[in-house]
Amino acid sequence: MRKPTPEDKFSFGLWTVGWTGTDPFGVSTRPALDPWEYADKLAELGAWGITFHDNDVYPFDAPADVAKARVAQLRDAAAKSGLVIEMVTTNTFSHPVFKDGGLTSNDRSVRRFGLKKVLNAVDIAAESGASTFVMWGGREGAEYDTSKDLYAAFARYKEGLDTVAGYIKQQGYDLKIGLEPKPNEPRGDIFLPTIGHALGLIADLDHGDIVGLNPEVGHEQMANLNYTHGIAQALFTGKLFHIDLNGQKGLKYDQDLVFGHGDLLSAFFTVDLLVNGFPASPDAPRYDGPVHFDYKPSRTEGMQGIWDSAKANMETYLLLADKARAFRADPAVAALMEENLIAQLAVPTLAEGESVADFLATEEEFDADAAGAREYRFVELYQAALRHLIS
Amino acid sequence: MRKPTPEDKFSFGLWTVGWTGTDPFGVSTRPALDPWEYADKLAELGAWGITFHDNDVYPFDAPADVAKARVAQLRDAAAKSGLVIEMVTTNTFSHPVFKDGGLTSNDRSVRRFGLKKVLNAVDIAAESGASTFVMWGGREGAEYDTSKDLYAAFARYKEGLDTVAGYIKQQGYDLKIGLEPKPNEPRGDIFLPTIGHALGLIADLDHGDIVGLNPEVGHEQMANLNYTHGIAQALFTGKLFHIDLNGQKGLKYDQDLVFGHGDLLSAFFTVDLLVNGFPASPDAPRYDGPVHFDYKPSRTEGMQGIWDSAKANMETYLLLADKARAFRADPAVAALMEENLIAQLAVPTLAEGESVADFLATEEEFDADAAGAREYRFVELYQAALRHLIS
Amino acid sequence: MRKPTPEDKFSFGLWTVGWTGTDPFGVSTRPALDPWEYADKLAELGAWGITFHDNDVYPFDAPADVAKARVAQLRDAAAKSGLVIEMVTTNTFSHPVFKDGGLTSNDRSVRRFGLKKVLNAVDIAAESGASTFVMWGGREGAEYDTSKDLYAAFARYKEGLDTVAGYIKQQGYDLKIGLEPKPNEPRGDIFLPTIGHALGLIADLDHGDIVGLNPEVGHEQMANLNYTHGIAQALFTGKLFHIDLNGQKGLKYDQDLVFGHGDLLSAFFTVDLLVNGFPASPDAPRYDGPVHFDYKPSRTEGMQGIWDSAKANMETYLLLADKARAFRADPAVAALMEENLIAQLAVPTLAEGESVADFLATEEEFDADAAGAREYRFVELYQAALRHLIS
Amino acid sequence: MRKPTPEDKFSFGLWTVGWTGTDPFGVSTRPALDPWEYADKLAELGAWGITFHDNDVYPFDAPADVAKARVAQLRDAAAKSGLVIEMVTTNTFSHPVFKDGGLTSNDRSVRRFGLKKVLNAVDIAAESGASTFVMWGGREGAEYDTSKDLYAAFARYKEGLDTVAGYIKQQGYDLKIGLEPKPNEPRGDIFLPTIGHALGLIADLDHGDIVGLNPEVGHEQMANLNYTHGIAQALFTGKLFHIDLNGQKGLKYDQDLVFGHGDLLSAFFTVDLLVNGFPASPDAPRYDGPVHFDYKPSRTEGMQGIWDSAKANMETYLLLADKARAFRADPAVAALMEENLIAQLAVPTLAEGESVADFLATEEEFDADAAGAREYRFVELYQAALRHLIS
Repeated sequence: MRKPTPEDKFSFGLWTVGWTGTDPFGVSTRPALDPWEYADKLAELGAWGITFHDNDVYPFDAPADVAKARVAQLRDAAAKSGLVIEMVTTNTFSHPVFKDGGLTSNDRSVRRFGLKKVLNAVDIAAESGASTFVMWGGREGAEYDTSKDLYAAFARYKEGLDTVAGYIKQQGYDLKIGLEPKPNEPRGDIFLPTIGHALGLIADLDHGDIVGLNPEVGHEQMANLNYTHGIAQALFTGKLFHIDLNGQKGLKYDQDLVFGHGDLLSAFFTVDLLVNGFPASPDAPRYDGPVHFDYKPSRTEGMQGIWDSAKANMETYLLLADKARAFRADPAVAALMEENLIAQLAVPTLAEGESVADFLATEEEFDADAAGAREYRFVELYQAALRHLIS
Repeated sequence: MRKPTPEDKFSFGLWTVGWTGTDPFGVSTRPALDPWEYADKLAELGAWGITFHDNDVYPFDAPADVAKARVAQLRDAAAKSGLVIEMVTTNTFSHPVFKDGGLTSNDRSVRRFGLKKVLNAVDIAAESGASTFVMWGGREGAEYDTSKDLYAAFARYKEGLDTVAGYIKQQGYDLKIGLEPKPNEPRGDIFLPTIGHALGLIADLDHGDIVGLNPEVGHEQMANLNYTHGIAQALFTGKLFHIDLNGQKGLKYDQDLVFGHGDLLSAFFTVDLLVNGFPASPDAPRYDGPVHFDYKPSRTEGMQGIWDSAKANMETYLLLADKARAFRADPAVAALMEENLIAQLAVPTLAEGESVADFLATEEEFDADAAGAREYRFVELYQAALRHLIS
Repeated sequence: MRKPTPEDKFSFGLWTVGWTGTDPFGVSTRPALDPWEYADKLAELGAWGITFHDNDVYPFDAPADVAKARVAQLRDAAAKSGLVIEMVTTNTFSHPVFKDGGLTSNDRSVRRFGLKKVLNAVDIAAESGASTFVMWGGREGAEYDTSKDLYAAFARYKEGLDTVAGYIKQQGYDLKIGLEPKPNEPRGDIFLPTIGHALGLIADLDHGDIVGLNPEVGHEQMANLNYTHGIAQALFTGKLFHIDLNGQKGLKYDQDLVFGHGDLLSAFFTVDLLVNGFPASPDAPRYDGPVHFDYKPSRTEGMQGIWDSAKANMETYLLLADKARAFRADPAVAALMEENLIAQLAVPTLAEGESVADFLATEEEFDADAAGAREYRFVELYQAALRHLIS
Repeated sequence: MRKPTPEDKFSFGLWTVGWTGTDPFGVSTRPALDPWEYADKLAELGAWGITFHDNDVYPFDAPADVAKARVAQLRDAAAKSGLVIEMVTTNTFSHPVFKDGGLTSNDRSVRRFGLKKVLNAVDIAAESGASTFVMWGGREGAEYDTSKDLYAAFARYKEGLDTVAGYIKQQGYDLKIGLEPKPNEPRGDIFLPTIGHALGLIADLDHGDIVGLNPEVGHEQMANLNYTHGIAQALFTGKLFHIDLNGQKGLKYDQDLVFGHGDLLSAFFTVDLLVNGFPASPDAPRYDGPVHFDYKPSRTEGMQGIWDSAKANMETYLLLADKARAFRADPAVAALMEENLIAQLAVPTLAEGESVADFLATEEEFDADAAGAREYRFVELYQAALRHLIS
C-alpha cells in the first residue's frame, strides 16, 4: 500500500492520538504528550492536517496569555511540519460547569459563559486558518424527561447557533460551522441525535447558510442508522461540510475504533461515495473536504499502538478507495447496475413539462404483477462489491 | 376510570384492530371482518375517529366502481356511528410491485403507478373529510448500499412529495400531509428513518408548508431515540401534524404493542407534553390533533383480545393524562421545577437587544467551579413524577 | 410511603453513592467522601447493608497495614450504624495493569497478580462477614477478535473461578461467589456477556456448587434481554445468589440509573417475582437475599442529589412491592390468570408415569384450529397489571 | 473463485431458497417450487446437503400417507442428486395452534400435540439419515411478563427436551439435538435467547449429553453479541453441534442476509475459527460439521436472485476461508501474535502442581505500572487481518 500524501487530505484530531485511555472504569494507561509532539508525528506519518479543541492545547483555566502562547506554538509547529489546521472546535463538555450543557444548560449564566467560550474558539479557528468550526453538543441533552423545557431547549440551541454563525459573518471569517450529531453518551439523550435532526434545526436557523454537518460514522450507528444513507442526505441538502471517520461495533458505548474496524462493508460504501460520487447523478454535490479521523487508540495500546492505529486509519481508507475505484470501473458491475435499473432512478418520475392533470389523465399500460416479479438482482450486485472488496 | 368520549379524540386505524395475526413465521390466527364492522365496534368503545389505507377498504385490484362503493359504505357506517374519518393513507407496500418502493423504486413505471395510487388516495381522503393524509414509505429504502443512487432516491422522494402536496393545493383540498418516519422493517434501511430526517427533507420541499409529521412511538424507539424529544422538535418546527401512539420494547422488530405497554415512563412524559404542553413556554405550539393509536392486538389474542387491547390504549392514555395533570398541579413539583431552573431555559441567553459585541465586551463575574457544583435535583424531580405515576 | 427498615434488606455499594461523576467526556463534579461517611449516611436513610470493592476502601497501591486499617475502620463504622457488610468484591478493572483483563489477560504475570488480588479480597469478604463475593470481570474481554485465543480465555476464566471457589471451600469461609455478567463496556465484548453465558460456564466448573449469579438489570438490558426472564432462569437453576437493581434506557452506555427510572414495567415484574414468587409454582426457589442497588447518581447531581437518588431507589422498590402485592391479591387478576391458563403450565406435559411409548400410542382428540383460535386474554391481564401500577 | 464441492459440506435449508417473500407488510413476490426442485438446483450449484422442516415438505394437515410419500420423494431426489439430508427440524411456529408455543404453551393439550409433532419429526430425521435434529423454539416465549409462570416454562422446556432426547436414545437413533437460540421475533422475548442461555439449560437436562447448539449468526447479533465469542464458548463446552451462517445488519428484525453481507469482519473471524481452529489451543475441540446456511433471498429478488444469493453464501465462505488460511500462514502475523502474547493465555495461571497455598506464599516481583504500560499491539494484529482480507 502506498504511503499517504498531503493530496489525500488526511487529518486527525489532536485528542484522538492524544487520548490517554481514561474510561468510566479505569484510569489513563498512557502519558499525554504536548500537542505539537502529536502534530510532528502525524506529519511524519503522512497526515495533511490536524484539528483540535481549545482545551486540547491549553487548560480550561489557563490565563489568556498562556492560551495564546500555546496556540501560537502549535501553529508554528504545524507550519514547520507543513500541516494544515483545517478545523477547530471547542470543549464545552469536560468541566463540571457544563454538566447540564453549554448552550442549553438550564442555568443562564452557564449558557452565557459557554457561548463566550465558543465565540473565543471561533476566533482561534479563524486565526489558525481553519475552514470549519465543529460544534459537538455532547452535554446538550438530558437523562430525565422532566429536566428540560424541550421547546426552550431548541430555542436556546437555535439562539446559540445563530449567534455563533452571525458572529462569523460579522467578523468576515471564512469559516463554516459543522454540527456533529450524536444520540447519547455522555448524556442519556443528546439533542440533535442524528444527521436528520441536525438538518431539521439548521433549516430553522437565520444564518443556516453557513451551518452544515460533521457526521461521525459511529454516532449514526449508535442510533442504528446507515451512515452512507445519512451523508447522502446531507449531500442532497448541500450540508456535508466535514466528516468524522471511525469504527463502531453496533449499539454500545462510543467505541471510536479505527475506520473500517467496525462495519467494514458500510465503510467501503462510504468511501465509494466519497471517492466516486453517486453512480447516476454526475451533477450531484460531491464531498471534497478533509478526510478526518475521529477515533481512539484502544486503551490496551501503548505509544506504539497509537501510531499503529493512526496509520491503520489511513491505510484502510486508501485500500478501500482503491477497491471502490476498481469496483466502479468493472464492466461486469456496470452491467449489473443496469440490471438493477440504478440509472433509471435519476430520471424524474414525471416527464419534463408533464402536469399532474396530464399525468392523471394518461392511461398507461402497466402490468403490476409482471413488475412485481421483476428480477433486479440486487444481491448479485452487492456480492460483486464484496467480491471486489475481498478477492 | 371514566369511559372515553368523542372529546378525547381517540382514533384507530382499521388495520390495527383488523390485523389478523400474520407474521414472518406464522399465518393468521383470527378472521378478518368487514371494515364497517370494525368501525361500529370502535364507536361503541368510545372512539371518536377512524383512519384507513385504501386497501384496508378494498382490494388492490378492485375495479374502480367496487372501490368507490366500499369506501362509500364505510363512510355511511362511520356517519351513522358518529365517527370522524380523520385520516386516510395509502398502501404502497403490500403488493409485490412495490417491493423496491413506490416513490423511489428504481423502476420508473412502478413510480408512475405508485404516484397515481397515492394521488387517488388523496382524492379519497378529501372526499372522506379527512384532515390528514399520512404517507409511510415503508418500502422506500434498501437492503444493499449498492442498489440505489441515493441522491436520485432523495430527488425522487422530493419529487413525489411535492407532486402530492402540489396536487392537494391545486385541488383546494383542506388536507395536510403527515410523513411517518421509520428506520427499518420491512426494508433494511428505510429512507427518512427518523423524525429528524423527515424534517430535513421537508425543509427542502417546494410545498413543504403543508407537509409535516406523523411520528410513531415505536418507530423512533427502533432508532434508539427518545420519542418525546422527537415530537418536541417537531412542535418546535411547527410540524407535528398527527401522532401514532403505541408501545415497543426496545430494539427489535416493530411490535406495535398497546400504548404504554412498552416504555411506560416515556409514555407518561409524551402524554404530559400532549396534555399540558411545555412547562415554561406557554406560547409554544401545542398539539391538538387526534390521539391516534397505531398498534396491533398481539397474535396470541382472539376477537375478545382485539377489543380488550383497543380499550387498553384509551384507558392507558386517560390514566396517564390524569396523572400528568396532577403532576403539574402539585406545588412540590413546582418547587422542584424551580430548583431545576426549568423556567430559566426559556429566558434568552442574550439580553433583549444585546449585541454580540456588547456581550463579548461585558465582563461578567462567574465562578465556573461553583456553577459546576450546582445542585439541580434533576433526579428528585423525576422521582416526583414517578411517585405521581405509581402512588 | 413508609420509610425503609432493615427488614427490607436494602443495600448499596459504596461506589454507587461514592461515584464522583467522572465519565468518558468529563471530570468529577463532586468530591469523594471517606467510605465510612457514606456508610453512616446510608444507615440514616434506612439501608440495611453496604458492599464494596477493596479499592473503594483503600487505594490500589496502599501498603498492607493501611489497607487493613481502613477496612477495620469501615467495619467499625458499619457495626456502629447497625449496617451489615453483606457483599465484598474486588476491583480488577481500574488500574492499567488490568487493561487486558485480570483472570484472562494474555499476560500470565498479570493473571497471577490479579488472582492474588482476588484471593486477598476473598479474605476481606470473609473477615467482614459478607455472605457473597461478587466477581464482575469487566476487563475480561476484547475489542479485537484476533487478540485472544478464545478457548484459552474460557479455560483461564474457569481456572480462575475454580481457584477462587476452591480457596473459599478450603478456608471454610461461608461465602458464595456471584458472577456479574455484562455484554460490553468497558471492553468491546466482555466474556460471560449475559446470565445465560455465566450459567453455561458455571456448569463446567469443578466448584460450581458455590458459584452463582449477581445479575444487574441494566447489564441484561444492554444485551437487549428481559431481566425478569433472566433471573427466572437463574432461579430455575438454583443460581440466583445476589441481585443488582438499577435502571437503563435501552441500548447505550451503562447508565446505572435509579431502579425504576429505566423500564418501569419491567421493574414492576422483577419486584413482583422477588416479592411474590412464581404465580403457579409454590415450591420453586425464591430469592430472599439482599435487595442491592448498583446505580450511579447522575453526574448533574450534587451531594443532595446523591441522597435524593439513594432514597429514590428504596422508595421505588417499596412502591412497586406494594403494587405487586395488591396485584396478586386482586380476584379479577386471579380470574384473568385462569383465563390465561397460567397454572396449567405448571402441570407436566406427560401424565405421571406416562411413558413416551404410551404417549405416542394414545390417540387424543385435538382440534388444532380450535386451539389456534383460543382466547388467552394475555393483553387484558397485562393491562390489569398496568392498571394496578398506575391507578 | 473455485466452485464448491461436496468436501466443503455446504448445506441449505429448503425453507431458505424456498422463501417466497411474505413479510409483515407484504405478500409473496415469488412462487414456491416443490421441495425436490430446490434440492436438484442446490446440488447443481455445488451444495453437499439439504435440511428441512417437516412442513417444508408436506402441509401441516397432510394425512400421514401423503406426508410419508412426499418425504420419500424428497429423499429419492436427494439420493439421485448425491445430496445428504444432514439435518431435519420441525415447524412448531407457523400454525395458530402454536401461537403461545409448542413445548411451553400454557395450554397443556397444545403441548401434548406439539411434543408428538416433534417426536414424529425425529422419526423422519432418523429415517432420512440426518445426524442433527434442530429445535428452534421460535414461539416459546412471551410478549407479556404476566402471561407465563416462568419457572414452569423452564420446567416444561426441560421436560420437552428431555422427552425428545430420551426418545432418541431409546430408539437408538444416531441423532443429536441442536438448540437454536434467538432473542426475539416472532415473540417479544423468546426463551433461551442466546447461546449462553441454551448452554445453561442443557446443563440441567437429564439427557443433555446429546443436546447441544445450532447457533445462528444473526440471532446472536440481534442480542448485540459477538457470534465468534459465542461459538467459542459452545466449543469450549463441547456443544457446537451445528451452525447456521447468515448475515444481519445490527439490531433490527431478523434479516437472514447472505453470509458475509452483514458484519463482514465478524464473518471472517468466524470462518477463521471454523477453518483454522483456536490459534494456541491445538487440542481444543474443532467444528467439523456441515457448513449450513440459514438465510433468505431478499424479497426484491426473483428466481434468478434466489440462485445468485445461494451461490453468494458459498462463494463468500470460500473467499473468507482462503483469506483466513493466508492470514494464519503469514510470518508477520505470527510475529504480531507473539507480541500480542496470544500463546501465553493457553498457559495455566498456576504452575503445574502449584497449590493455592504455595501460590499465595510466593512473593513474585511484579511491577504493576510497567505491566500496565505494556505494548500488546492488538490494533496492529487486527489491522493485519483486515489487510489480508481486503488487499
